[in-house]
Amino acid sequence: MTEAKKKVLSGAGLRGQIAGQTALCTVGQEGAGLTYRGYDVRDLAANCKSFEEVAFLLLRGHLPNSSELTAYTKRLHDMRDLPVTLKEVLERIPADAHPMDVMRVGTAMLGTLEPEMSFEQQYDVVDRLLAAFPAILLYWYRFSKDGERIACMTDEPDIGSHFLALLHGKSPSALHREVMNVSLILYAEHEFNASTFTGRVCASTLSDLYSCVTGAIGSLRGPLHGGANEAAMALIERFSSPEQAVTELRAMIERKDLIMGFGHAIYRDSDPRNEVIKGYAKKLADEVADTVVYPVSEAIEKFMWDEKRLFPNADFFHASAYRFMGIPTELFTPIFVCSRVSGWAAHIFEQRANNRIIRPSAEYTGEEQRPVTPIGER
Amino acid sequence: MTEAKKKVLSGAGLRGQIAGQTALCTVGQEGAGLTYRGYDVRDLAANCKSFEEVAFLLLRGHLPNSSELTAYTKRLHDMRDLPVTLKEVLERIPADAHPMDVMRVGTAMLGTLEPEMSFEQQYDVVDRLLAAFPAILLYWYRFSKDGERIACMTDEPDIGSHFLALLHGKSPSALHREVMNVSLILYAEHEFNASTFTGRVCASTLSDLYSCVTGAIGSLRGPLHGGANEAAMALIERFSSPEQAVTELRAMIERKDLIMGFGHAIYRDSDPRNEVIKGYAKKLADEVADTVVYPVSEAIEKFMWDEKRLFPNADFFHASAYRFMGIPTELFTPIFVCSRVSGWAAHIFEQRANNRIIRPSAEYTGEEQRPVTPIGER
Repeated sequence: MTEAKKKVLSGAGLRGQIAGQTALCTVGQEGAGLTYRGYDVRDLAANCKSFEEVAFLLLRGHLPNSSELTAYTKRLHDMRDLPVTLKEVLERIPADAHPMDVMRVGTAMLGTLEPEMSFEQQYDVVDRLLAAFPAILLYWYRFSKDGERIACMTDEPDIGSHFLALLHGKSPSALHREVMNVSLILYAEHEFNASTFTGRVCASTLSDLYSCVTGAIGSLRGPLHGGANEAAMALIERFSSPEQAVTELRAMIERKDLIMGFGHAIYRDSDPRNEVIKGYAKKLADEVADTVVYPVSEAIEKFMWDEKRLFPNADFFHASAYRFMGIPTELFTPIFVCSRVSGWAAHIFEQRANNRIIRPSAEYTGEEQRPVTPIGER
Repeated sequence: MTEAKKKVLSGAGLRGQIAGQTALCTVGQEGAGLTYRGYDVRDLAANCKSFEEVAFLLLRGHLPNSSELTAYTKRLHDMRDLPVTLKEVLERIPADAHPMDVMRVGTAMLGTLEPEMSFEQQYDVVDRLLAAFPAILLYWYRFSKDGERIACMTDEPDIGSHFLALLHGKSPSALHREVMNVSLILYAEHEFNASTFTGRVCASTLSDLYSCVTGAIGSLRGPLHGGANEAAMALIERFSSPEQAVTELRAMIERKDLIMGFGHAIYRDSDPRNEVIKGYAKKLADEVADTVVYPVSEAIEKFMWDEKRLFPNADFFHASAYRFMGIPTELFTPIFVCSRVSGWAAHIFEQRANNRIIRPSAEYTGEEQRPVTPIGER
């Protein structure tokens, strides 16, 4: 591609182009900034007791009543353990591997052990992934870091608490349970973002659910997509006081460094998820009598608004919230997977129910037609 | 989604929508039906001695001269062996697994053992995958079918011959070498098809090459994309004579059964790859004095044209060609991976060189905004 041609990219990123229909989600429309099946995500975060309730909504189409929720929660609880063969594979992944690659291998391998033989099994497969993801990540993590083969079952009532219990080896506090559930609810679904769209393209060939989810994980791994909360944490950790943060941020902005966790491709004025997670970050900071991380975070928020009119997105205060719960930074994006698999699968179900293979066109910018020169004359 | 809304899908499949630029390929334009970097695929199949020559063209941008080709062929040769840890993982994949899932796990796992730490390594990673794919598939295949831990290195001069040697445990004939190389050349690249587009969406998040290729494999696995040559073989094998084929095909068409291996989403009159592979299928049939498979294939071709004006695509005569070389049907689509990874990677390089995250929009067809009902009132 010549330099001149590089400058004009028609169709770049498909921005604003309609690639299909969904009944799952609106982003950045009038009123609520983010809805799942018509419900404001803030309403769901405030009134649903667990992430399971929202996963049920996305996957089954309606909010569960008490008996449906009890049954669904028990179902997911009972599917948490991992096959021995999968554990043997996880033990062979290097300790310095990217945790998202562990999720990718774990999903791909589970797909050979418990394959989706027909689309009638799609609910079983996504429930299995929802239930198994915390153990896929944390069995590897604890084995490779501590040499410990942890038990993959816990009695924790929900996936969020189960995650924390596997990580820390003990039952989480009531506040930590609540924050994990809210966090998983906030990250569950976001329309045709790149990872979800990856899953739908794969689904449009009528491939199996594991292939679709493995592809989506690969896209979420990219630094332009998932990982903004990890980058936000890395930023916050550079500063030991609000004053230092402001001084150094000013220098960063003068150097045109990218500040992660601010602004959004679609939201213009604020990210509706931010106010929710920020409130919990504050509660967690108070719980541990933090005097650095939260004040630094607030100072960064104020500075970015005053200087750049940029608002924190869902990722920014997630960083400190996760940190206060003792979650290592490198596990932030895999938690996103534990949540978003509910949205991915709901989109895959939609694609399957009304499918046409996704096969766009390209603008050709290459060489004119030419004959093959014999190798001796090249 | 209501039934009424299901019927009208705007933007369905992005058909005809420009999703980006490429200098790699034209499909269905004036003149040659399929070009790679300006070269007619038939010209490449006739005048390139090995698939390596075409992989070099796609990945490096020009046809190699003799010394470049010698060096590249040696480079790929030396990268063929698998890490012990990867073999241990492959041994744990069930014997009845889908061979495409083996490719998916193998790619995902290799990405944890030899990760792409920066895009400067992208040529190393794709060359490694090109070199290792035959062994990833066939180490598992021979271990799970025969209980044999095969050596993953051979002295075969090219990837196509290496594949046949690992499968059969002996060096292939000159004709078989030639057919495998031509087959890999024909399948190497095809513009923005669904698997390549999956790879580009993943690449647009700036994720690593293993994630992109794992995603593309998952899409190629779908029966609407890869696998048409497997379906063609299954069809051909149902008939023991041309007469039986015609009689039963007539009944199938009356029942509106789908006949795989005919017609194409983009080509209108013929698939330029068909004439090439059909010629080789005939040579292979003559070699083994076949009196069934090739005559049945020709009878199906004639019937489909006479009755439906449908032409065979690249997949149809690939089926008999592969069969004559003793390749089990279930391995047909993985061979497609061994070839197409060159095109996928070339597209991923293009996407990285001029990137914007691929994030289309959706048309919302769901519920109006509504409040969350307390769980006790549902």
